[in-house]
Amino acid sequence: MGKKILIIGGVAAGPKAACRLKRLQPGWDVTVVDQDNLISYGGCGIPYYVCGDVSDEKELRSTSFHMVRDEKFFADAKGVTVLTRTRALGIDRRAKTVHVRQLDSGKESRLPYDKLLLTTGSSPVDLPIPGTDLDGVFTIANLHKAIDIKERIARGQVAKAVVVGGGAIGVEMAEALTDLWGVETALVEYMPQLLPRVIDREFAAMLKTQLLDKDVRVYTGESATAIVGDDNGRVTGVKTGKRTLDADLVIMAVGVRPRSELAREAGLAVAPWGGIKVNNRLQTSDPDIYAAGDCVAVPHLVTGRETFAPFGSLANRQGRIAADNIAGGVSLFNGVVGSFIMKAFDSCIAATGISYDTAVAEGFDADCSLSAPFDRAHFFPGAAVAVYQMVFDRKTRKVLGLQGFGPANDSVSVRINTAAALIARGAVIEDFITVEMAYSPPFSSAIDPINAAACIADNMCAGLLRRVDTDRFLAWMDDFSREQDWVVLDIRHPQEAAPYVGKFGPDRWLALPYNEIRRRHQELPDDRTMIIFCNAGNRSFEVQVALDQVGRKNSLVLCGGFNVIRRMGADLPV
Amino acid sequence: MGKKILIIGGVAAGPKAACRLKRLQPGWDVTVVDQDNLISYGGCGIPYYVCGDVSDEKELRSTSFHMVRDEKFFADAKGVTVLTRTRALGIDRRAKTVHVRQLDSGKESRLPYDKLLLTTGSSPVDLPIPGTDLDGVFTIANLHKAIDIKERIARGQVAKAVVVGGGAIGVEMAEALTDLWGVETALVEYMPQLLPRVIDREFAAMLKTQLLDKDVRVYTGESATAIVGDDNGRVTGVKTGKRTLDADLVIMAVGVRPRSELAREAGLAVAPWGGIKVNNRLQTSDPDIYAAGDCVAVPHLVTGRETFAPFGSLANRQGRIAADNIAGGVSLFNGVVGSFIMKAFDSCIAATGISYDTAVAEGFDADCSLSAPFDRAHFFPGAAVAVYQMVFDRKTRKVLGLQGFGPANDSVSVRINTAAALIARGAVIEDFITVEMAYSPPFSSAIDPINAAACIADNMCAGLLRRVDTDRFLAWMDDFSREQDWVVLDIRHPQEAAPYVGKFGPDRWLALPYNEIRRRHQELPDDRTMIIFCNAGNRSFEVQVALDQVGRKNSLVLCGGFNVIRRMGADLPV
Repeated sequence: MGKKILIIGGVAAGPKAACRLKRLQPGWDVTVVDQDNLISYGGCGIPYYVCGDVSDEKELRSTSFHMVRDEKFFADAKGVTVLTRTRALGIDRRAKTVHVRQLDSGKESRLPYDKLLLTTGSSPVDLPIPGTDLDGVFTIANLHKAIDIKERIARGQVAKAVVVGGGAIGVEMAEALTDLWGVETALVEYMPQLLPRVIDREFAAMLKTQLLDKDVRVYTGESATAIVGDDNGRVTGVKTGKRTLDADLVIMAVGVRPRSELAREAGLAVAPWGGIKVNNRLQTSDPDIYAAGDCVAVPHLVTGRETFAPFGSLANRQGRIAADNIAGGVSLFNGVVGSFIMKAFDSCIAATGISYDTAVAEGFDADCSLSAPFDRAHFFPGAAVAVYQMVFDRKTRKVLGLQGFGPANDSVSVRINTAAALIARGAVIEDFITVEMAYSPPFSSAIDPINAAACIADNMCAGLLRRVDTDRFLAWMDDFSREQDWVVLDIRHPQEAAPYVGKFGPDRWLALPYNEIRRRHQELPDDRTMIIFCNAGNRSFEVQVALDQVGRKNSLVLCGGFNVIRRMGADLPV
Repeated sequence: MGKKILIIGGVAAGPKAACRLKRLQPGWDVTVVDQDNLISYGGCGIPYYVCGDVSDEKELRSTSFHMVRDEKFFADAKGVTVLTRTRALGIDRRAKTVHVRQLDSGKESRLPYDKLLLTTGSSPVDLPIPGTDLDGVFTIANLHKAIDIKERIARGQVAKAVVVGGGAIGVEMAEALTDLWGVETALVEYMPQLLPRVIDREFAAMLKTQLLDKDVRVYTGESATAIVGDDNGRVTGVKTGKRTLDADLVIMAVGVRPRSELAREAGLAVAPWGGIKVNNRLQTSDPDIYAAGDCVAVPHLVTGRETFAPFGSLANRQGRIAADNIAGGVSLFNGVVGSFIMKAFDSCIAATGISYDTAVAEGFDADCSLSAPFDRAHFFPGAAVAVYQMVFDRKTRKVLGLQGFGPANDSVSVRINTAAALIARGAVIEDFITVEMAYSPPFSSAIDPINAAACIADNMCAGLLRRVDTDRFLAWMDDFSREQDWVVLDIRHPQEAAPYVGKFGPDRWLALPYNEIRRRHQELPDDRTMIIFCNAGNRSFEVQVALDQVGRKNSLVLCGGFNVIRRMGADLPV
């Protein structure tokens, strides 16, 4: 006789697990309950639906062969029963039933289970400030909200918008509003940078510059203190500590947290921050109850800590693994490295592993290599610069993370995903130096950006490369008094260097071309700290080594050079 | 006192090693000799120079900051001495000298060394047929040949061309001639498929179809038996066993082999096929002589055999490693997985590890999963189909290889490079199921193509998925008498299936939509073998499982479905 499997939550992990279960155990009775009427949708596609790239919300909940994934689809094609508009109220672990209420009829019942799977997902964090209940204030909690937002914009009701929260969803929504609809959009983030904790300052600055270039007004280090409205209860703006921003639409995107109330109330082990605890077979503290997706706590493979990884991709993978185990097999989910990727207008920003700041906070002997290579052979038409930062531990030589910022093609994805595969396996710098990247000029360089980043890290560990922090250099460019003895040694082509020498003065910006350094090094000052400057940092490194070899050790390299500081928004001569 | 390092060969591994050596050991004397006057160039860029994407050959031998890498550049910027037009005639290992001749002056001398590095590269294989010495017959041996070819085309002297050899260089040259210059081009390959040994038949067929679509005439399974010319010694055509192809230009691209004569004559250990034997520090059988780049034999990490891997990218990596070891450090080169990637008109074709045919030949318990997923979220604008084949061992579950064919963007590169990193580390199917691919709709699907390929492999190992060989299916479509009891079960939308039923007849092509199978399976024949057919193969798998579950086990899945056979050139209704 078949078992009864009950699954609570019908967006990503739940439907995936249900379908897999019916393939593995056709005789079993698999039921999914969800409080919503719209299920099995690509939540990550919401910004692209709002901006119009995806014209109909049905596309987000359709298969690649254009069938809408509704209750009937799951019944007909998958043999899975889906009960929509059905809220789970409580789990009776002794009786092995789930108490549910059908939201339209109000009818309550108890659904029995042999095995229960919790795929309850995550919910947006509510900011405890006044006005969040005003008309026109939204979270991106589900597809209904997205439909409502898009309808307001399409009806011409939105001229100005404010997005509160500079995480991935906030940035994607800011792009969606600005790019197609021309809504005047401001973005407020209370931390000093965008994507806090996920990427380092340099990358956040590059992202911010990209948003500013596209007319998104970005206010970092600024808290939204209140949402304000008119007498009709309609939103009119957002107050921060420093200003009031007008808005017909406010999107609250200050993060999400695991939806684990049911689990906690049922007495399952739940982390203090809300993640449901599971073993590597995705079993909770009750062996008959599994959990998967945004609602669980998973091990981080770099830090070893429990972490929150709310990604639709992980939810799908976990759904399959939970199903394998529920069906009686053995499948393991060992943890995450935290890969993320995002489009922001013409750019792609991505990261895997941990950032430099996180690595320092975690107590690693952390350092990082910053580089600005071409995304394919530099002589191939359309080759463009991307920026990479590899975070590593000097003692163990383990690579802890990689961040990339480049054009909105797939080139950053190539490097981030390869790095993720290696980092998850504890790879060291040498592994990244030799990792075999397929080479052909239309797709890569003979020395791939990922190999190059590792070579720089290797040179740093060997003491061959001494760098200056980019932030510190930019601060000095704003105020030369910060570092009295610094002088830039610009080794680029004289025509590139000339406007810089002109703007900053020869006392602060010295030019001597790369290929003349070996011959003319004696012209260089020995009582100053020379910041060696080129376009990408490679030549600067070579020059530092050459100067060291003639006993002139008074230099630091600005890794990534012009390519990085320009993208970070430095005020440079054109 | 500094050591004397002599390097023979100045294209890729040699210059890389020389520059690295000068950074590690500034006091050492590093000299590179090369018989050519053009050095340090991107040989893989030659097809893009010939087609005009790269306008000047100097770009192929310039840095990313537009400095030509000539003797003066190496002296000024790198502190490396380069002797061009200098041929190495022999190595005296006892005296530790290399006998060289300056080709312009004819002057001979002996250059002493403490450590010698052989980076002699590879040379084109000469086909032993008459006429290869005619005017207008070229190999892609060096940049001079490329310059000559381009000049002839630019002068309007080439209306028709024949490329002999369907490897990567042959295909790239065929594209170069056809695409920009409109030269009527034919490609002759004596093996039954393009890129023999590198990719499997299905992928070779997709590549061939792409070339035919772009008006390259492709003759596989046909040997060039003679090159023919006119009375002036000019080439006029190529004879094959079956026809004579007119040509003003013939490009011989039948492969390359290691240039190891010097090493062999000096008594160093050399593999029978010509690769110089080295240990994992790239040291030859003489501890004072190292070798790197195309001329060496390296271990294949999947087969464990010695292999030939002539890639500019590996040459660069090996150059750095050889330099580290020569300088007194320890750096290891452990082997290759054989990654390759290529653009062919609007397509990208790539592979890593070994093909299915190779896996069978090597004695693996080999099988392969074929899939045709979208390269990003299917609802994202511009999403396109790519085709992947994962080769695996059923017993150990090790993944042995991955092949991809998709649009000419970087999406195939993402999956091939991630796979290469995993395969080099002996990863099994489970590792590919869970490998964490960064997800966002503009860049990937929630279930990434690489995860999906592994899930299919997993289902095959579990006996959940039984497939039919694509070739066998296509042969049947040409001649139904080959398999008397077969009938296609087309589960696509009725509108998609109708023209097929019309063309092939309901006795051979049966239509029943995917979502009606569970309800209507009793209408299906149980005395025939049903080949389940959809667009990508996913639905077919589900239907097979569902039919198995109701006891109808008379089905096979056509993995990859319509998307694959269409790309392979099947004659299908539109």
